[in-house]
Amino acid sequence: MAETRVRSLPREETGLPEEIFGLDPDFVAEIDQALEEERDEIVRELVVPLHYADTADLIESLHGDHRSRLIDLLRPDFNPEILPELPDDIRDEIIERYGFADFAALIEELDSDDAVYILDRMDEAEQAHVLARLPLETRTIVEQGLNYPEYTAGRLMQRELAAVPDYWTVGEAIDYLRSNAVLPEDFYVLFVVDPRHRPVGIVRLNRLLRAKRPVRLRDIMSTELDIMKVDMDQEDVAFLFRRKDLLSAPVVDASGRLVGRITIDDIVDVIDEEAEDDILRLAGLSESSIYVSTWETIKSRFTWLFVNLGTAILASLVIGLFESSLEQIVALAVLMPIVASMGGNAGTQTLTIAVRGLAMKELTASNAMRVVGKELAVGAANGIAFAVLTGAIAWAWFDQPMIGAVIAMAMVINLVIAALSGIAIPLGLERLKIDPAVASAVFLTTVTDVIGFLAFLGLATIFLL
Amino acid sequence: MAETRVRSLPREETGLPEEIFGLDPDFVAEIDQALEEERDEIVRELVVPLHYADTADLIESLHGDHRSRLIDLLRPDFNPEILPELPDDIRDEIIERYGFADFAALIEELDSDDAVYILDRMDEAEQAHVLARLPLETRTIVEQGLNYPEYTAGRLMQRELAAVPDYWTVGEAIDYLRSNAVLPEDFYVLFVVDPRHRPVGIVRLNRLLRAKRPVRLRDIMSTELDIMKVDMDQEDVAFLFRRKDLLSAPVVDASGRLVGRITIDDIVDVIDEEAEDDILRLAGLSESSIYVSTWETIKSRFTWLFVNLGTAILASLVIGLFESSLEQIVALAVLMPIVASMGGNAGTQTLTIAVRGLAMKELTASNAMRVVGKELAVGAANGIAFAVLTGAIAWAWFDQPMIGAVIAMAMVINLVIAALSGIAIPLGLERLKIDPAVASAVFLTTVTDVIGFLAFLGLATIFLL
Repeated sequence: MAETRVRSLPREETGLPEEIFGLDPDFVAEIDQALEEERDEIVRELVVPLHYADTADLIESLHGDHRSRLIDLLRPDFNPEILPELPDDIRDEIIERYGFADFAALIEELDSDDAVYILDRMDEAEQAHVLARLPLETRTIVEQGLNYPEYTAGRLMQRELAAVPDYWTVGEAIDYLRSNAVLPEDFYVLFVVDPRHRPVGIVRLNRLLRAKRPVRLRDIMSTELDIMKVDMDQEDVAFLFRRKDLLSAPVVDASGRLVGRITIDDIVDVIDEEAEDDILRLAGLSESSIYVSTWETIKSRFTWLFVNLGTAILASLVIGLFESSLEQIVALAVLMPIVASMGGNAGTQTLTIAVRGLAMKELTASNAMRVVGKELAVGAANGIAFAVLTGAIAWAWFDQPMIGAVIAMAMVINLVIAALSGIAIPLGLERLKIDPAVASAVFLTTVTDVIGFLAFLGLATIFLL
Repeated sequence: MAETRVRSLPREETGLPEEIFGLDPDFVAEIDQALEEERDEIVRELVVPLHYADTADLIESLHGDHRSRLIDLLRPDFNPEILPELPDDIRDEIIERYGFADFAALIEELDSDDAVYILDRMDEAEQAHVLARLPLETRTIVEQGLNYPEYTAGRLMQRELAAVPDYWTVGEAIDYLRSNAVLPEDFYVLFVVDPRHRPVGIVRLNRLLRAKRPVRLRDIMSTELDIMKVDMDQEDVAFLFRRKDLLSAPVVDASGRLVGRITIDDIVDVIDEEAEDDILRLAGLSESSIYVSTWETIKSRFTWLFVNLGTAILASLVIGLFESSLEQIVALAVLMPIVASMGGNAGTQTLTIAVRGLAMKELTASNAMRVVGKELAVGAANGIAFAVLTGAIAWAWFDQPMIGAVIAMAMVINLVIAALSGIAIPLGLERLKIDPAVASAVFLTTVTDVIGFLAFLGLATIFLL
């Protein structure tokens, strides 16, 4: 069993997450050694019993010849579930080594949503080769799946489901389940459909088991159905699953016919992606893990830093307007980063709440004005608090009350503007249909830097010179 | 049905998320009006058929007398599922209006995990009153639940489960399910236990349905079990569910006896909380939604901004060391925020990847050094790229090649230090068992500000004066 192969570095020793859940590095080293020594039987004995997630990790962590050799050794027992867990380039290597026919045979064994996911990530020529080698029925299903736009219910759903007519009895349904070979491997509810194949209810299997054979499905089915349309955005699907605590939901096409089912485990991936995207985009990142190559990482981060350099130069241009003030009072140069920095931080707090509120659909048209009002109040209150604090510190430091007054005024202005921008920028981007998580942060810091320097140096020029 | 009551503001009109999924503001206004006019029957007709999540939102959005009146009107049909969706103060109001006995009767109807969740959030006196009014069996289960530490598998699990001995046949199991009244309301798997009540396998209900009555459970059960211990951290449980694509898992006590089950829908909440925490903490936030009161928001954000003021003042102190350099070359004041800002942004990128990598258990003891190496390489590469760019801009701007050289050197230094800090700070905090998401950002900007100003102004003092 997989579990016995998995071992931990004690947390006390390293302070880092224990690896009870992943592959033990010693185990990986052992396999690597066995591959090196071409002890094929040992390798197969060690690897074949692994869970598919572990096998995928193992394949990924090996390199060059050893990886190719392992792929070849696993061929007779290759678990198709490994495929969706692998990066694209390794799947390409598998196609290369197994050939299209054998690869198509693996795809054929997967659930339709996984098959669509993999085919979608291939280039067109590869895709055509694999599709041509699938049996007609699977091929039709996969092609239909590929036709649904990305990130929709149609892409998420599995086509395999257990559907029965509403006039059947419990006994008829049980006999059908016992006889029918084309049912999904695992399912937890029966979908009940009307004569036009539109979903009218669901029967949970435990209800079916506990009911008497002559009872009509109609009488034990639950009619509280949350029906998803094929073209619904996957984030909206996830939202409904969370809000209604759903475990599975029927998916219908434009004419209302039942065409698939979405289950909560598909939703977990959507939720993960969503949260991940928000976190990463707020920091100007597009890569999704620590495994991306160094060169890709350099390129993707360069873009964001480049945009940021523009912002920083803009701020410097603002400072440049006040060169003569700075020449006369050097204290201004010492104090000026404080106002900009506090504005940036306060604004980021508001921004994070707004971006997350939009993603979780908590921030909507009907409460936007109320939230803006609250953020302005918070900005003003903390603006005043920090104006007093910073003013007192600046006064004491440079022994000049007026410099305290100037930094205090600038602080209130920048914290109010920061609050306003922190909410207005993401709302505006959402309205322009630009993901607010991507671009909000750079706009915000531009505003808080420019206003921070402008207010402080401008007020100083007016009141101190 | 709830769905018919739910309407959207078209996205085109507002640019904000559609409210197809929440309560229509017009509908809330209609209820509010009916409450005002004391048309109790209308109110009940409108509200009773709602989904519990919508009812909870409705109660939350009403105020004062209207809320109390609605709570009273719902009393005969109050759906216990509403309770876990409400904030603590509204639950307190319900206790006040219904009394402890009726409130305990509602708790009694909930799944044990929800009951534990609610009791845990009450003050001790209230908790004792409710516990005293629960039937002995429920009371024992809830008290045991409250004894497990927070954020563990014991808290997440439901005590209600369907367990059968491994020597039974399919027929015996089906007869038991049909006869037994104390089974959970919904379940999808049967847990198979040995004579000491330790889990040895699971039988999915669809397999049970499709098997013949005389077959032994032992022969159709799946023995690939992922067993959770009661004291396991909930994030570790969530990690295992994701990695192994689990739908439900047995939970055992210290002696290995089956004491509960965790299902994937409980995990969705954990995943949401986890991601939410990371996003918010990186921005120095502790509140979890846009609904927190203005005063609470001001207080919670003040703390973070106060820490930040300390950082900003530290940076100013560093600048203060170079007052005489700034007096002689005012261009330094104009350019100095660029180096600090670029360092802060580059560091935040690394930091976000590291914090998320730790949370998702991708960053571990065995790959930490490799990731540090990669981040240093990325920092150095982008440091050099931006050194060239910024150096050229500064040279052109102030027509002085040496000022370009100085800012270029400072940029490389700060971007390398930023990369190193971005990974070392979260790893260090994790080792000290401090949540890296909470404190990393403030340490990081302290480092990048101080190093940014120190390197640029220090090098300028050496080379330009």
